[in-house]
Amino acid sequence: MGACPHAWRHNLQHRGRMWAASPAFRRQLFLLRSLAPSCTCVSGGRASSSSLRVHAMHAAAAGAVYEADAESVVRRITPPLDRARHKGQAGKIAVIGGCREYTGAPYFAAISALKVGADLSHVFCTKDAATVIKSYSPELIVHPILEESYSVRDDERESVSSIILTEVTKWMERFDCIVVGPGLGRDSFLLNCVSNIMRHARQANIPTVVDGDGLFLVTNNISLVEDNSLAILTPNVYEYKRLVQKVLNCDVDEENASEQLTTLCQKIGGVTIMKKGKADVISDGKQVTQVSTFGSPRRCGGQGDILSGSVALFSSWARHFLLSNDQPTEKSVNPMILGCIAGSLLLRKAAGLAFEKKKRSTVTTDIIEFLGKSLEDICPAEQ
Amino acid sequence: MGACPHAWRHNLQHRGRMWAASPAFRRQLFLLRSLAPSCTCVSGGRASSSSLRVHAMHAAAAGAVYEADAESVVRRITPPLDRARHKGQAGKIAVIGGCREYTGAPYFAAISALKVGADLSHVFCTKDAATVIKSYSPELIVHPILEESYSVRDDERESVSSIILTEVTKWMERFDCIVVGPGLGRDSFLLNCVSNIMRHARQANIPTVVDGDGLFLVTNNISLVEDNSLAILTPNVYEYKRLVQKVLNCDVDEENASEQLTTLCQKIGGVTIMKKGKADVISDGKQVTQVSTFGSPRRCGGQGDILSGSVALFSSWARHFLLSNDQPTEKSVNPMILGCIAGSLLLRKAAGLAFEKKKRSTVTTDIIEFLGKSLEDICPAEQ
Repeated sequence: MGACPHAWRHNLQHRGRMWAASPAFRRQLFLLRSLAPSCTCVSGGRASSSSLRVHAMHAAAAGAVYEADAESVVRRITPPLDRARHKGQAGKIAVIGGCREYTGAPYFAAISALKVGADLSHVFCTKDAATVIKSYSPELIVHPILEESYSVRDDERESVSSIILTEVTKWMERFDCIVVGPGLGRDSFLLNCVSNIMRHARQANIPTVVDGDGLFLVTNNISLVEDNSLAILTPNVYEYKRLVQKVLNCDVDEENASEQLTTLCQKIGGVTIMKKGKADVISDGKQVTQVSTFGSPRRCGGQGDILSGSVALFSSWARHFLLSNDQPTEKSVNPMILGCIAGSLLLRKAAGLAFEKKKRSTVTTDIIEFLGKSLEDICPAEQ
Repeated sequence: MGACPHAWRHNLQHRGRMWAASPAFRRQLFLLRSLAPSCTCVSGGRASSSSLRVHAMHAAAAGAVYEADAESVVRRITPPLDRARHKGQAGKIAVIGGCREYTGAPYFAAISALKVGADLSHVFCTKDAATVIKSYSPELIVHPILEESYSVRDDERESVSSIILTEVTKWMERFDCIVVGPGLGRDSFLLNCVSNIMRHARQANIPTVVDGDGLFLVTNNISLVEDNSLAILTPNVYEYKRLVQKVLNCDVDEENASEQLTTLCQKIGGVTIMKKGKADVISDGKQVTQVSTFGSPRRCGGQGDILSGSVALFSSWARHFLLSNDQPTEKSVNPMILGCIAGSLLLRKAAGLAFEKKKRSTVTTDIIEFLGKSLEDICPAEQ
C-alpha cells in the first residue's frame, strides 16, 4: 500500500542495497509504522511511493504496540524469481509432526510453505501418519521415521531414539527452517526424540518455529529454546497462558500485555514470540509490534498450521535477505520478527479472501488455496 | 424467505433479546407456521419482513402436522460470526462411527458439520477405518481407537473396553454434540463399547444424535436413550418400523402417523425423533412439526449422514442460543427440535442445488459442497 512495487520490480537485482541505502528503513523496520509516502510516482497507471517515511518508536517502553507495515515487509523479504536460480534456492522447509492421531496439521503447515513459494517441503512423522499425509498430496516429501511409545519395546528405546536422530540429522543441514509441533501429539517417547532433534537443529543454526504440541514440549522444558535467537514460538491464547504461568510464574496481564510479552521473551532469552489473537503481537524482548489486519471471522481449526508453515518460509527468506546484505546497520534487524509479520499478514489476507468466497463453510484447505493470490496481490511475481 | 435478513444483521448483538421480546415468537416456535409477513421492508434491493405473524397450534392433539418455519429457525439459531471469538466457539462435534467395512458415512457426517460452520470436527473409529477417513480430508481429527471383535482376544475384552472408554471420555467434555452410528457396523464388541460411550455422554450432558447402526443398537437397548431429553433419533422408514415394533409392539400406522410418533417419543421418554421421509416429521412427545421443502429426487446413499452431522451442529447452536437467553419463557423451547428442523431444511436446500447442477449424477459429496451456499442463501454471514 505504501511502498512502490514499480520501483521494486525495476530494481530487483539491487533490492538489497537499495533497502540498506534507505536511511529511514535502516532503522528497526519491525518497530516502525509507515506514516506517509515521502514521494509518489505514477507508473503504468499505479500510484506508488519510492520510499517510506517512518518513525522509530520504542513501543515496549512506551506501553503501546505499533502496527507493523506488514505489506512492506512482505515486499522487502520475498526473493525475486530469478530465472538463473536452482531448485531449493527459494526455500527448503521441514515440519516435524504427525502421529497416529493427527495428520491434518503437519500437512497444512508443509503445504502452506510450498504454496507461499518454497521449493521443497518435507514432513518427518510416524509411520502411521506418513501414509495418510502422503495421500493428501504428492507435492510433499514425507519421512516415516518417528515412533510412538506403543510401537517401541522398552529395551529398544535407546537404540530407536538414536536411529531417529541420525535419520533426521542427515537431512537437517539442507533445511532453511524447521517447524516443530503441528500434529506432534504428546507421546513421551516421541517428544523425547523431538527434543533431541531440536537440540541438533540449534547446534546446526537451523531456525525453528515451535507451534501446537511443540509448545507443550517447550513449555515443560524451556531450555530447549532458551537463548536461541533463531527460535520462534507461536502460541494461541491458551498456549500463551501456560507459557506465562510456567516462565513468569504469574497469570496473563491483559492490562500490560505488551510489557509482559517483552518480559517473557527476555526471561526465556532471545526467542521471538508471536502471541496469536485478534491482533498477532510479536516481540523478541527488545521490541514489540503487531499485525491486526482483519482476516476472517471463521475460526476453523488448522489456521495456526498455515501460519507456522508460512512464518518458517518468510523467516528464512528474511534471514537470507539480511545475511546477503552488506550494510552492517541492517544486521540488527531480527529476521524472525520480519518472518512473523509477513506470515501473519499473508494468513489474514488469504483467510479474508477464502471467507469472501466460502463464508461459514470456509475450511483450512480453502484458505491455503488463497495464499498464492494474497502474496501476488502484495508482491507480484512478474519479472 | 419470510423473515428479514436486513433487520437480523442490523441487530446481531441483540438477537437473543429481540427474539425473546417478540410476543409471537415466544410461543412454541417449533409448532408454528408462518402465515404471512406482518411487514415488508426493502433493503439493498431485497424484500424481507421484519417479523413473523404466527399461530400456535396443538398439532398433535388436532391430528395435523404443521410445517415448521424452518428458514426462520435457521436464522434464529445460527450464531453471529463475532470477530472476537476463538477457535471452538462456533461448535465442536464428534462422530462415533467408522469400522473395517464402512468409512464414507462417518466422513460425510463429520465434514458436513464442518461445512455448515463448526470449528472442529472429530471422528472416533476403528484403526482400519481411520487411515481411510483421514485420507478423505485433512480437516477432520480422526481417532483410531475403537476395536472390533476380530482384533481383540477374549481375555483382553474387558481391559480393551476400559481403555477405549477412557480414551473417548477424556475428549468428551470438549464436544457440543456427538453423533453415534454413521458407519458403526454391528460388531458386538464394538457396539458394547459404544454403549458405554453413550452412557458416559449422557452423564456428561452431551447431546447425542443417533443414526444408522446406532439406531440398531438403541432399538435393541432402549435404556440407552430412555428419558434423555438431549438425545435425537433420526430413523429412516425401515429403522422407524423396527423402532415402533420394538417399543410400541405394533406396526407403523400410516393413518395416524403423527400420533404414533408422539406416542413413541412419550414411551421412550423425552427423546426427540425425526422420522425421515418425503417430509421429515419431528416430535419430542409434546409437539410435532415437519419440514417438507422439496430437495432432490436423487436418493444416493449418504444423505442421512449429512443430516446427522448438520442436526448435531444446529442442535448445539440452538442449545447455546437458548441457554444464553435470559427470557424464562424461552426455556421451554426444545433445542433438539430446532436442530432437527434446521438440519432437515439445509440438507433439502443443498440437495436441490446439487441436483440442479449434477442431475442423475449427483452424489453425496456434491450435496455437501452446497451446504455453505444453502446456509448463506438463508442466513448471510456478512458482517
